[in-house]
Amino acid sequence: MLTVEYDGSAFCGFQRQPNGPSIHSEIEKALSVLFAGKTKIQAASGRTDSGVHAVGQVVNFKTGSLLSLERIQKGLNGLLPRAIAVRSVRRAAPDFHARYSARSKCYEYLIWNHAVRSPLRAARTWHVPYALDLGKMRAAAARLKGRHDFRSFCASDASSADKNTVRNVRQLTISQRENLIRIRVSADGFLYKMVRNLAGTLVEAGLGKMTAAEAGRILKARDRKQAGRTAPAHGLCLLSVTY
Amino acid sequence: MLTVEYDGSAFCGFQRQPNGPSIHSEIEKALSVLFAGKTKIQAASGRTDSGVHAVGQVVNFKTGSLLSLERIQKGLNGLLPRAIAVRSVRRAAPDFHARYSARSKCYEYLIWNHAVRSPLRAARTWHVPYALDLGKMRAAAARLKGRHDFRSFCASDASSADKNTVRNVRQLTISQRENLIRIRVSADGFLYKMVRNLAGTLVEAGLGKMTAAEAGRILKARDRKQAGRTAPAHGLCLLSVTY
Repeated sequence: MLTVEYDGSAFCGFQRQPNGPSIHSEIEKALSVLFAGKTKIQAASGRTDSGVHAVGQVVNFKTGSLLSLERIQKGLNGLLPRAIAVRSVRRAAPDFHARYSARSKCYEYLIWNHAVRSPLRAARTWHVPYALDLGKMRAAAARLKGRHDFRSFCASDASSADKNTVRNVRQLTISQRENLIRIRVSADGFLYKMVRNLAGTLVEAGLGKMTAAEAGRILKARDRKQAGRTAPAHGLCLLSVTY
Repeated sequence: MLTVEYDGSAFCGFQRQPNGPSIHSEIEKALSVLFAGKTKIQAASGRTDSGVHAVGQVVNFKTGSLLSLERIQKGLNGLLPRAIAVRSVRRAAPDFHARYSARSKCYEYLIWNHAVRSPLRAARTWHVPYALDLGKMRAAAARLKGRHDFRSFCASDASSADKNTVRNVRQLTISQRENLIRIRVSADGFLYKMVRNLAGTLVEAGLGKMTAAEAGRILKARDRKQAGRTAPAHGLCLLSVTY
């Protein structure tokens, strides 16, 4: 299993796509060069959309190579493009599956909350130029935290991918340092675009466009059309996966 | 006077160059569109090299425009590319000169000190994969702080640009948060590439390749050939200019 960090800006997303380089294909290319033979990723903890970053994406693959874990890591980091790095390589159990074995995942959503956009933070944060009320964001977060049916926060274009839409959001915290607002969310699993829909809704609460009670009602409605806007991809980062 | 933030990655440096877009030319282009007539930057606090970032570069220009300061700021931020933003617009005295009126400048140099490179920090930090000893870096910094002739830390290719090479380094601090090391340096002025040469020398001290006493001797030698390597441009950021 590999723990992988990437800057999502340069890619069309994690998953292999016809329209540009993906993190998935870059890693498989490096694996295949290193092991001198086609080597496939068997699973990833989840797909990240185009523009989404990761510091702790996890993927697993099988190899008969006798290279040490350290050599594999150094080899891959020498082969991968600058925007992707392998942070660790570990031996996993034969039945390990980066997605199905995951017990929880943690994401971070970053907001640059200042009238003027910040070029040095542009690739990592959503620029919200109007003042956000953290108290209001936290009150809305309190309604969304916990075990709920999150159908309202699932992408409307997700078709029937997620039949069971109940998830347990164990952590949903909002912190601020100067103009940078950090939303951190952990759950046993996430629906498609769920974090970005939660972030969009919390921002509407912070702007005073939605009360905490309304956020709670959206959750209960189990209807995507009710929720706030989807926050842009580039503010999102997959922090870690717990197994 | 404009206070300007930029991500230096996309530019050939602050100063107008034949080989690519410069921050200087992008700002002049925006000024000239906004004021519907050629408007030149009269001065900048200093030139930053290709790849160097800024959160507080200062430039000044003259205009007869009747637009409010707020309208000027919003207009420029609408015209400038994503990698440049005007953080503030202020009215300056007629004799104000962004470079000659400066009393001090403050730079930050960032180092990612971990065996594995970090894609999400690659554009802003110098990756030093070997462990740095902060105590040794601070001991060397203590020898370099203060009013000295910094000829040894001036770029060897600076020709005769800086005849007076005495500068007063008022602050030279090194801090660490997890794998990120931050060098902060303030002075009444800087020689060409002085911060990058100081950072390179401090890193050699941190790696145990140079003692604090040797750093002190390099300073006294007043000879560029003695100093450590020049740290790469992309770790450097101009934080602020004091007038």
